[in-house]
Amino acid sequence: MLTMQDALRRLSDYWTDLGCLTWQPFNTEVGAGTMNLATVLRVLGPEPWDVAYVEPSVRPDDSRYGQNPNRLQTHTQFQVILKPERGDPQELYLGSLEALGVDLSAHDVRFVEDNWAQPAIGAWGLGWEVWLDGMEITQFTYFQQVGGQDLDPVPVELTYGMERILMAIQGVTHFKDIVYATKIDGTEVTYGEALGQQEYEMSRYYLDDADVETNRSLYESYVAEAGRMVEARLPVPAHYFILKSSHAFNVLDARGAISTTERAQAFGTMRRLMRDTAALWVERRTELGLPLLKESAATVLELPSVPAELPQDPQTFALEIGVEELPPHVLPATIEQVRESVTSLLGAARLEHGAISVEGTPRRIVLTVEAVAAREPDAVEHRKGPKWAAAFDADGNPSKALQGFMRGQGVALEAVEKIEIGGNEHAAVATTRVGRGALEVLGEIVAQTVAGLRAEKNMRWSDPELSFSRAIRWLVALWGPVVVPVAVSQLVAGRTTYLQRTTGGAVSATRSDGAALGRVEIATAEDLSPTIASGSIELSTKLRRAAVVEQAVALASGVGGVVDVEGEADLVDEITNLVEDPHGVLGHFDERYLELPDRVLVTVMRKHQRYLPVRDASGALLPHFVTMANGLCDDDVVRAGNESVLRARYEDALFFWNADLKTESVDSFVPGLEALTFENRLGSVGQRARRIADVATWLADRVGLAESERETLTRAGQLAKFDLATQMVVEMSSLAGFVAREYALRKGETPFVADALAEMEMPHTSADAVPASTPGTLLALADRFDLLAAMFGLGAKPTGSSDPFGLRRAALGVVRILREKPELAISVRDGLDDAAVRLREQGVTCDAAAMDAAEEFTIGRYAQLLRDEGVSADVVTAVLPSADRPGVADAHVAALTALATDADFRALVEAIVRITRIVPAETTPSYDASLLTEPAEAALAQAVEATLQSDDLHSFARGHAGLVAPIATFFEDILVMADDPALKAARLGLLATIVAKAPMNLDWKAVDAATS
Amino acid sequence: MLTMQDALRRLSDYWTDLGCLTWQPFNTEVGAGTMNLATVLRVLGPEPWDVAYVEPSVRPDDSRYGQNPNRLQTHTQFQVILKPERGDPQELYLGSLEALGVDLSAHDVRFVEDNWAQPAIGAWGLGWEVWLDGMEITQFTYFQQVGGQDLDPVPVELTYGMERILMAIQGVTHFKDIVYATKIDGTEVTYGEALGQQEYEMSRYYLDDADVETNRSLYESYVAEAGRMVEARLPVPAHYFILKSSHAFNVLDARGAISTTERAQAFGTMRRLMRDTAALWVERRTELGLPLLKESAATVLELPSVPAELPQDPQTFALEIGVEELPPHVLPATIEQVRESVTSLLGAARLEHGAISVEGTPRRIVLTVEAVAAREPDAVEHRKGPKWAAAFDADGNPSKALQGFMRGQGVALEAVEKIEIGGNEHAAVATTRVGRGALEVLGEIVAQTVAGLRAEKNMRWSDPELSFSRAIRWLVALWGPVVVPVAVSQLVAGRTTYLQRTTGGAVSATRSDGAALGRVEIATAEDLSPTIASGSIELSTKLRRAAVVEQAVALASGVGGVVDVEGEADLVDEITNLVEDPHGVLGHFDERYLELPDRVLVTVMRKHQRYLPVRDASGALLPHFVTMANGLCDDDVVRAGNESVLRARYEDALFFWNADLKTESVDSFVPGLEALTFENRLGSVGQRARRIADVATWLADRVGLAESERETLTRAGQLAKFDLATQMVVEMSSLAGFVAREYALRKGETPFVADALAEMEMPHTSADAVPASTPGTLLALADRFDLLAAMFGLGAKPTGSSDPFGLRRAALGVVRILREKPELAISVRDGLDDAAVRLREQGVTCDAAAMDAAEEFTIGRYAQLLRDEGVSADVVTAVLPSADRPGVADAHVAALTALATDADFRALVEAIVRITRIVPAETTPSYDASLLTEPAEAALAQAVEATLQSDDLHSFARGHAGLVAPIATFFEDILVMADDPALKAARLGLLATIVAKAPMNLDWKAVDAATS
Repeated sequence: MLTMQDALRRLSDYWTDLGCLTWQPFNTEVGAGTMNLATVLRVLGPEPWDVAYVEPSVRPDDSRYGQNPNRLQTHTQFQVILKPERGDPQELYLGSLEALGVDLSAHDVRFVEDNWAQPAIGAWGLGWEVWLDGMEITQFTYFQQVGGQDLDPVPVELTYGMERILMAIQGVTHFKDIVYATKIDGTEVTYGEALGQQEYEMSRYYLDDADVETNRSLYESYVAEAGRMVEARLPVPAHYFILKSSHAFNVLDARGAISTTERAQAFGTMRRLMRDTAALWVERRTELGLPLLKESAATVLELPSVPAELPQDPQTFALEIGVEELPPHVLPATIEQVRESVTSLLGAARLEHGAISVEGTPRRIVLTVEAVAAREPDAVEHRKGPKWAAAFDADGNPSKALQGFMRGQGVALEAVEKIEIGGNEHAAVATTRVGRGALEVLGEIVAQTVAGLRAEKNMRWSDPELSFSRAIRWLVALWGPVVVPVAVSQLVAGRTTYLQRTTGGAVSATRSDGAALGRVEIATAEDLSPTIASGSIELSTKLRRAAVVEQAVALASGVGGVVDVEGEADLVDEITNLVEDPHGVLGHFDERYLELPDRVLVTVMRKHQRYLPVRDASGALLPHFVTMANGLCDDDVVRAGNESVLRARYEDALFFWNADLKTESVDSFVPGLEALTFENRLGSVGQRARRIADVATWLADRVGLAESERETLTRAGQLAKFDLATQMVVEMSSLAGFVAREYALRKGETPFVADALAEMEMPHTSADAVPASTPGTLLALADRFDLLAAMFGLGAKPTGSSDPFGLRRAALGVVRILREKPELAISVRDGLDDAAVRLREQGVTCDAAAMDAAEEFTIGRYAQLLRDEGVSADVVTAVLPSADRPGVADAHVAALTALATDADFRALVEAIVRITRIVPAETTPSYDASLLTEPAEAALAQAVEATLQSDDLHSFARGHAGLVAPIATFFEDILVMADDPALKAARLGLLATIVAKAPMNLDWKAVDAATS
Repeated sequence: MLTMQDALRRLSDYWTDLGCLTWQPFNTEVGAGTMNLATVLRVLGPEPWDVAYVEPSVRPDDSRYGQNPNRLQTHTQFQVILKPERGDPQELYLGSLEALGVDLSAHDVRFVEDNWAQPAIGAWGLGWEVWLDGMEITQFTYFQQVGGQDLDPVPVELTYGMERILMAIQGVTHFKDIVYATKIDGTEVTYGEALGQQEYEMSRYYLDDADVETNRSLYESYVAEAGRMVEARLPVPAHYFILKSSHAFNVLDARGAISTTERAQAFGTMRRLMRDTAALWVERRTELGLPLLKESAATVLELPSVPAELPQDPQTFALEIGVEELPPHVLPATIEQVRESVTSLLGAARLEHGAISVEGTPRRIVLTVEAVAAREPDAVEHRKGPKWAAAFDADGNPSKALQGFMRGQGVALEAVEKIEIGGNEHAAVATTRVGRGALEVLGEIVAQTVAGLRAEKNMRWSDPELSFSRAIRWLVALWGPVVVPVAVSQLVAGRTTYLQRTTGGAVSATRSDGAALGRVEIATAEDLSPTIASGSIELSTKLRRAAVVEQAVALASGVGGVVDVEGEADLVDEITNLVEDPHGVLGHFDERYLELPDRVLVTVMRKHQRYLPVRDASGALLPHFVTMANGLCDDDVVRAGNESVLRARYEDALFFWNADLKTESVDSFVPGLEALTFENRLGSVGQRARRIADVATWLADRVGLAESERETLTRAGQLAKFDLATQMVVEMSSLAGFVAREYALRKGETPFVADALAEMEMPHTSADAVPASTPGTLLALADRFDLLAAMFGLGAKPTGSSDPFGLRRAALGVVRILREKPELAISVRDGLDDAAVRLREQGVTCDAAAMDAAEEFTIGRYAQLLRDEGVSADVVTAVLPSADRPGVADAHVAALTALATDADFRALVEAIVRITRIVPAETTPSYDASLLTEPAEAALAQAVEATLQSDDLHSFARGHAGLVAPIATFFEDILVMADDPALKAARLGLLATIVAKAPMNLDWKAVDAATS
């Protein structure tokens, strides 16, 4: 039995033997090993630093009194930093798992994209979470930035989650059951026995007993001291106090005492302090002469020698770009990028070649070009000289211009020809461009293609020049049997490929000679793909996907189930690009978990585990799942591991579900909202829920809500957001709303109330539907109006990239609802004003200027949305005056689009615009018809009187068409600005009346521009 | 090369293999591994707990910017707890040194008494510091109490000082040069490279940059939170906050911001919190069902079987009590205790025996009794019945009383005899008490002697009943060839002894079979001492001392030096009892250290290292020393180790000495006193020094100081206590005063001033001399009067065992000075009143009541001193009214002692007492002689007038002797209480005059009692 302490010892021994310094856990509370100065400061600057240490990591928010099987307020990390990374960190890491006794040929170990960012310390990196049979056991990151500083050299950070690893290795399902140590008499001490009481008591402190005011005062003191230490140019104590302030903040957070504003402020403070401290550290190390930086000899790259005798006939060209596991979505793009690059570069060269094909897996991109000629053909080119007319003097001797040209080209007169260029005759010299050999051309293509690889997010690693989604580790480049002599930065192409890492035996035992890492030499280009295939690697994405589907379907049918291949297409795509050799394993879970809602179960399977759910013919979930391991493994081992992961996750969910549902009525959750702070100036979530209910009621009055729906709205209002106080939503916040509905239904609420509660959270995302029912709609609007009015009332509008309260999303929600429900007589401003009433009662300013800003912000989202939908800028401008009711504006947009080519409409619009140019905006739309005696004006007045006011452009176009001609005549015959003031007023009044009968709230100039 | 991290790994591996749990360093700052809850809480209660861990221990006060070779603000402890201790912790410990590569046969490893107490957490234990060639590398403690709770079972704590161990093993002289780790390329990382910057920057924080107000506020917050957690019954978070408060306190202390009062308060707070937390921990563990407590089978003791055939002739009895290293001063007392116990018990038994001898070493007490008979002789005893007269009735038949007696004794009438007891005839029955066998008698003697062993300080260990200075580990008890069958508690006597631990090879390799621990079987009692002697152990203290002296003298003479055997007698005694086999090694130190004063050098050698200084014929120190190793070792290794320890200590001292003496004048230290807080209500040490100078000046007026000495007093007053601001005294506080003198002399002060400065600190201890010069005396008095007046003024008088300001010592100092300088016309109250004047100017109350209390307290010390000197309680009471001037009181004591048997004096005293009984205390000592006309009263009046007033008892005895007879006549003839008031007044006045002419300030009733 490998005990917890054995495991720590083995890891420590393993990494120490690899030259890592042993460091001690930090002697103040840290949230992660990363925050120990042995990482967060030592990764900065040029000094090398290899270190390994244990770090008990404190996360007050994860306190569960020791009851949750996986979550602890203090969990044990084992942390490794390799700076610079040595080129084989994945292999070193796998060796450490073997040191722990993990048989890599039996288990499914995978590197699953997981990028790390900690904005609070200005840090980020790219990497993976490492899965052992579906359980995340290690965070593996190439650090790119810390404290806002680019890292050079790039360090690799490995963070082992020891409790998870031990649970997996020992096969226990609760951390308390981990065997921690063996005593001298052979009896065992469990984790629970060693640390259970601490776990309970510290949970009590963090969740229930910590004094909020004291911890606030501690936080302030720590921040002040950190600031002073930065000023004193002492990065080490500054870092200490940053850690302490961070812990105090986390304690307050776990006590529910941190509002969103305070969080944003605290993060800002921490980022600033950490940035200053990081900069200071680098300065101080430099002042100290970078003591750990020892000079090392520069590496000299050696290209393979080119054989004296090269093939003269066309050869296959094969290129393999070996990478560390690419994120699934990066792979297809990379395949395309390689295809395009090589195709285009080959096109630019003059090397004859056959078909180009590119395939790839997470670890390699393989390109094959058939029949690549041995050389480019030679080509004749002309160099252009002076015009022929100016090339010779009167005597027919070369002019000075021609002489200069000949000197420049180094030729005699005999070589000068006359050629025609662009219709002119020029002196010219013919030269022969000798075709380059295939190796030269291909070398350049390889260099440009590989050096040019980019993804959306790119990282650096130990290579001084390359930058890509993940590290590029090897290149195979063969033209027939010959290695293409090329180096891309420090990477020299060769004929060595690497199959799956466990091909051939243990990783650690033979890491030094590489034999067991699946290393294979490739004789000729044609051998590359077959050799890779012989290592059970499916290069073709299409075939790999087919294999995934085929296996999943077969495994599901084995238990009488189906996999919804269509419905899970995105997940299948992702899985396809997570493995080189899909190997399906069917797993099971206890049927009792089926009492949880489908959505909960499936969310866990898909999102956290990338398992394919198995359903029966009716679509109901079966207690099975399919996971796709990478390559051959021991199915039983992998199954057991994955089942245990899922069990733990479901056990968690079930625990919360049942604990929550012990209540008599969901009313019992409502008081819990008082304990949740929303924003310190805005009170609790409970207060916010009550504001929302009130605002929804007022909105109901505005829309004249049917009496039958009033009851639903009232009850849903009483329960608004109650699920935020449930354990389930505290754990899985993405289930807010969904949980409200489920719990409400189970606790005797009507389906209408339940739906309204769920709908008030909609739309979550831009892809999400808007609420269906009117009560749900009103609550959803009220929720968002409250948020917008409150934050603008506090002057906390979003800036640049910072939108901590999600105001953009809220505004978009309002806009989407109002667009999709144009029948609702609610304007943006109505809603904001209603919300402001309640907020003012709570002392929030919410004056007209703030509501103007909130309205403008919301309308701005609508305008952006229109532009994103391809609506022209003119149309957007034209309808903006209506955008306070997006439904109305939408109708205008549609009409403008439809009428854009209608000549009559155009004429009408021109007439209106002409009028608006003349008539002052404040003119009253009425007139004394008796004064209008000229025929043109009388005719127009008559036509106007016969015209109805139009609200929409279509009826306007139809109903007002008859005005075009009278208007034209009017302007031809009548001087509007008559000397007689009364007459002038009547004429202007007439024209104003025309405008007034047109749809209001349009920018006519923009309408004009949009339709011209 | 064993690197720092190798060493930690080896220790961890060693202890883990022995069943210790691996724990992590605590994640908040701790001052020592002891404070980690894995020790301080886990040692409480009955649960077993074996644990080993690294603990970076933070001591802000030890901050030295990384410059001091040995002192760090964070040093690395390796901590082991064995609970219960397993009976062989020393052997386990020695095995760990071997695991570190220490060759125990080459090095001198010793267990030197070092008892541990941390009153601030209510904890103490007994044990040793372990020396490796003179360097303290480990603290080894049997914990007795923590948090005020008795510990049961008793744990052993081992605390390794890793930096020291590594410096010793690697042979480097600065911690920064320790090789910390080896990198993958074989290069080394030093301790300085790994941790130097932290050491510097955290030193900066602790010494210079920590914000005092912030840390005060942190301290308060932590204390409050700890208190709240105690109330919430959560000992784990309570302990966290105790640690945090302790660290904040230490930071404040390092910044010089803690006054003595604050220290006392903080300690009180911490003690209370820790006591509550400890109690709570035990309660909580009990509530949790003591999860780590597993039932184990009770050990059954098996006594050796007694051979069927026992010798019939007398045999030698040999007893060896094997102990872990006794403190040197305990050994002689223990030898005596064993001798007395066995002698007395053998005397009480009736076993014939020869000579008794007892010898001992730190590890064993060996008793031999020659010719112990095989059995006690049988004895006849009579049981007493009723009086003979009442034994028979008138008919000569046994009376009821006799019948009852016979029934009780179970005898018939024939057995009844008549015997005489106490002059009465009784019925009686003769019985034979059969003599017990030697084994039975000796068994009881062994049991009583061993179980009864006690020292001044005793401890418990794993034995459930025994308690002694150190653990008793084995017993040899042989009567001739036969083992005495006895068990003392869990300890069964046998025939196995243990020679020196390294006899026979490595400790760790063969620990399990004990072969290498010097284990030897003893055949017969006579073999015991020779066998022990054969193991190079000198049992005789006398011979061991002779060996120490002989070797030391020889080694010293080898370098032309001598050892002052007489002068160092105490040290030689101590060394003698530190080793079983004294093996002298001569060491050397660099001559440049000789520039340090003799006292500094010798203090370090004696007090810290137990080295014998080597001097030349003139008494001047030579750069050599003699250390006495235990047993054979590699002299070069031991020499090098000891030299390196001494070098480090001298280097420190020299550094401070030279740094201090860079100044022009000692005046430059005076301003530094302002930065030292004495007590927050009493200002700085500087203010106190100025008060002392002023008070000394006033005292000088009182004694009429000669003008010639005035100048000395004034200058010394200006410089008073300046050396407290020197680095030397900050480091070695016992040199206060001495350093003042040395620095003053070197910086141009007169010898008088220098002496006065040294003398003002005298007497340090009760053995110390009082100041010689008058200026020194006055300063010393002023110092103590200031302290006493100040503290009583603040109401901070000592209580019970708590005397944080050393008021008892101060009062004793005053008393001793005034006793030894009776010529000084200074009373205790004079001095206190003078001091009070200056203190009142600083706002300290110092009212009469407070000064009364201070005076009473000081006089109380004097009274205690007299009682300790054997002065009878009556004499003490008699002289107490004079004790305000202890010199006067002393004279009274002497006189009373001398006159106690003088009949005339007795008569005189009786007369005085008779008068004092009659005459009211307020009576004026005058009378109208003309009224006294009766002969007896006229005669007495005449005699009284001829008598002079006496201040001392001798002149009183002489001068007043003539009054005895007239007084007697007066009382016979005269009625004092005459009816005539005038006459009565004259008579009372006459009597009062007699008393007034006797020495004042004596308690005459007590004088009477003392002399009767």
